[in-house]
Amino acid sequence: MKFLSQDEAINCDVELFNEYQFSVDQLMELAGLSCAHVAAKEFAINSESSNNLALIVCGPGNNGGDGMVMARHLSLMKFKPTIYYPKKVDKPLFNGLMRQCELMDIEFIDKCPSVDEASKYRFIADGLFGFSFRPPIRDTFKDIMKLMCETNVPIVSIDIPSGWNVENGPEDESNSIKPYILISLTAPKKCAQHFKGIHYLGGRFVPPRLANKYLLDLPEYPGTELCVKLN
Amino acid sequence: MKFLSQDEAINCDVELFNEYQFSVDQLMELAGLSCAHVAAKEFAINSESSNNLALIVCGPGNNGGDGMVMARHLSLMKFKPTIYYPKKVDKPLFNGLMRQCELMDIEFIDKCPSVDEASKYRFIADGLFGFSFRPPIRDTFKDIMKLMCETNVPIVSIDIPSGWNVENGPEDESNSIKPYILISLTAPKKCAQHFKGIHYLGGRFVPPRLANKYLLDLPEYPGTELCVKLN
Repeated sequence: MKFLSQDEAINCDVELFNEYQFSVDQLMELAGLSCAHVAAKEFAINSESSNNLALIVCGPGNNGGDGMVMARHLSLMKFKPTIYYPKKVDKPLFNGLMRQCELMDIEFIDKCPSVDEASKYRFIADGLFGFSFRPPIRDTFKDIMKLMCETNVPIVSIDIPSGWNVENGPEDESNSIKPYILISLTAPKKCAQHFKGIHYLGGRFVPPRLANKYLLDLPEYPGTELCVKLN
Repeated sequence: MKFLSQDEAINCDVELFNEYQFSVDQLMELAGLSCAHVAAKEFAINSESSNNLALIVCGPGNNGGDGMVMARHLSLMKFKPTIYYPKKVDKPLFNGLMRQCELMDIEFIDKCPSVDEASKYRFIADGLFGFSFRPPIRDTFKDIMKLMCETNVPIVSIDIPSGWNVENGPEDESNSIKPYILISLTAPKKCAQHFKGIHYLGGRFVPPRLANKYLLDLPEYPGTELCVKLN
């Protein structure tokens, strides 16, 4: 399987929108849904007493949009997600995603939780930065990055572990997010080669022609599954 | 479980778009995906020699859009769909859906197949008319309606068996589509009470608040499933 460079990931994305004429709405819905499926499989709610609390961290880009879609689908699958979305984007798609979550009684919190406050969550979904991330990390995101580095709650990173170099992985091992699960979307990026946890592929929408052009050599998704475990 | 009147179905839909601010792109993607899952479950491809040919009939409304989304996801699950879309709609979303299918090498046929020509298909997905249908059937659609009434190939109707009265069911039993499978989207419409075949619910996106307001009393979707069999 191929691991994409940052430029390849950006080009793939541009091609899906320009050449294949997908809307962001379509692909974000499928991406976020596949992330919800991964979490539901790995953190199954077996009984009424299962801890179903999840913190969904949403950044200002499409990664954050994936996170809000994930939260909405999780709430339809008996989870109780809470969203931390420190830098809101005023675009129709993102306003709609927020609205849908609000009307599904998903709480948005304004203040970054402490390590102690966050310990109640079964998992934290990291939708802070995606494949177009370049350092430095802005001040707005420093508290939540610190929390995600310090917490013992399992982290589920969407596409990229936030703060990692998209190609080279963690810049500073001792001060980086160490996700429990990574969900690569479309295809894994180079940084995923440095990832040691549970690795899934999601975003079952890649046209075979695009996969061939970028030599993606993707694994088969079994049956109707929207995600596939890679290890 | 409640069966919606035509007005209730229209109001539910309007509310999802206006109040919940979903885009058509989002809900159509989820609806069409759930239809592809139903077909993949009921017409499983067990081996290389399984007949994987499907005819997807798309009308000019959102039902036809669901059909194109269904076709795209079927093609990602090893089916070989062919689309008959006799009245094309020149809107960005629909142009995009066509483009995606074309670039995934899904064939569009211009001529309605004969009963004999259609006999090669494993199933026919009926995305011709949806819940806003009111008679009469226009000339453009008469050939395909005749085919779907006369063929022995199993028909999978999306939301409404085309030509049926949305509330009262088939107007003329001897000259109506008799679907093998009906996939009700969001919630069943009144006509589904007259349906005797395999009945599924799809479109797992209904906010609980909306379900409560319309007293939908929907069944639970198991696990991460996007569709649920009702009988």
